Amino acid sequence: MKVKVVTKILEANDRIALENRKAFDKADVFVVNLMSAPGAGKTSLLERTLSGSSGLKIGVIEGDIAGSDDAERIEKFGVPVVQINTGGACHLDANMIYEVLNDIPLDRLDIVFIENVGNLVCPAEFKVGEDIKVMLLSIAEGHDKPLKYPLMFQESSALILNKMDLAPYIDVDIQKIKKDSLSLNPKLKIFEVSCKTGEGIPEWISWLREKAQKK
Amino acid sequence: MKVKVVTKILEANDRIALENRKAFDKADVFVVNLMSAPGAGKTSLLERTLSGSSGLKIGVIEGDIAGSDDAERIEKFGVPVVQINTGGACHLDANMIYEVLNDIPLDRLDIVFIENVGNLVCPAEFKVGEDIKVMLLSIAEGHDKPLKYPLMFQESSALILNKMDLAPYIDVDIQKIKKDSLSLNPKLKIFEVSCKTGEGIPEWISWLREKAQKK
Repeated sequence: MKVKVVTKILEANDRIALENRKAFDKADVFVVNLMSAPGAGKTSLLERTLSGSSGLKIGVIEGDIAGSDDAERIEKFGVPVVQINTGGACHLDANMIYEVLNDIPLDRLDIVFIENVGNLVCPAEFKVGEDIKVMLLSIAEGHDKPLKYPLMFQESSALILNKMDLAPYIDVDIQKIKKDSLSLNPKLKIFEVSCKTGEGIPEWISWLREKAQKK
Repeated sequence: MKVKVVTKILEANDRIALENRKAFDKADVFVVNLMSAPGAGKTSLLERTLSGSSGLKIGVIEGDIAGSDDAERIEKFGVPVVQINTGGACHLDANMIYEVLNDIPLDRLDIVFIENVGNLVCPAEFKVGEDIKVMLLSIAEGHDKPLKYPLMFQESSALILNKMDLAPYIDVDIQKIKKDSLSLNPKLKIFEVSCKTGEGIPEWISWLREKAQKK
């Protein structure tokens, strides 16, 4: 008797993610899955990164439920960009990325950013073929976030604390964010930045550059 | 020949939501499904509402992926509160609320708030038996949110723009938020508040009081 177990959705997703990863590896491109809650500053971080990373050839895949605002912001930098509209889905999955692999010139790039849908929960559950996951947290969201949304902190290689310029105006305990994040994920690299003032951006870019070169 | 169509998940959810609604109606309690992205200030709004609404008997159902921080904050006000941990699910559904109906003294309350999981997407898709949906948007999240996350703006009866005290320090176009929100939902009632300073809270509470009394 043969028993066949029906493949779970996550396994199907993982299989396609592996195909994406093979395509990225073949093109020798380093892929970052960028995640955060809505409005934490993912696109602003990409703008700062594109401005401040001379010599790096970067492409961007934008994921949004609706609209193309973010892709239009990125397009101004003259880099390859593709917009995916998920049409309601609250995260990108591997299949959505697979569908756009031919729309971005992987062979000519060093790094591809995949900007996920703004959501602190589900994006962390779906691999898309990335080398690393990086998350942003706007400090205006408060210091209780690591313990309330643990998975994303556990899955990420780096945590970018954004909007540090707002620190004087809000009641937020940055040390608690760091402590709780590191208790969930001791290897997490933490950056304190402001995409408004540019504070902390050079440190982030040099870490990113090193990661990409090591691939 | 009889053809049976398998009930979709949302239909099953709607059926249980209807049962919840019957229980709320029987107890003559007004139920608000409170939604926002992570860190927009749902619990802070509840704290301000509990402080400023003398004469109203309020209970709270807290929804979080993990932890009981929010329920502990509410418990300090001496009101009935139940914490639901979704264990990974990025939204509350009707069945989760059905499971806790006996843990809250509906008959003795005027209003029950259901604080949903912090997520600007999926909570808007799942009825839980509420009379109205109310959403918060932290102005620090930016003015592009209505067009990027349209469903929640369409489903809500009121939009509470929180953290207005940060307006001088961030680049945000409040008029665009209002215009785009109203284009999605012309009946949307919009409040500008700061849960930090208390600005705008009395207007919100008197609107809420009127809605609850009309039930």
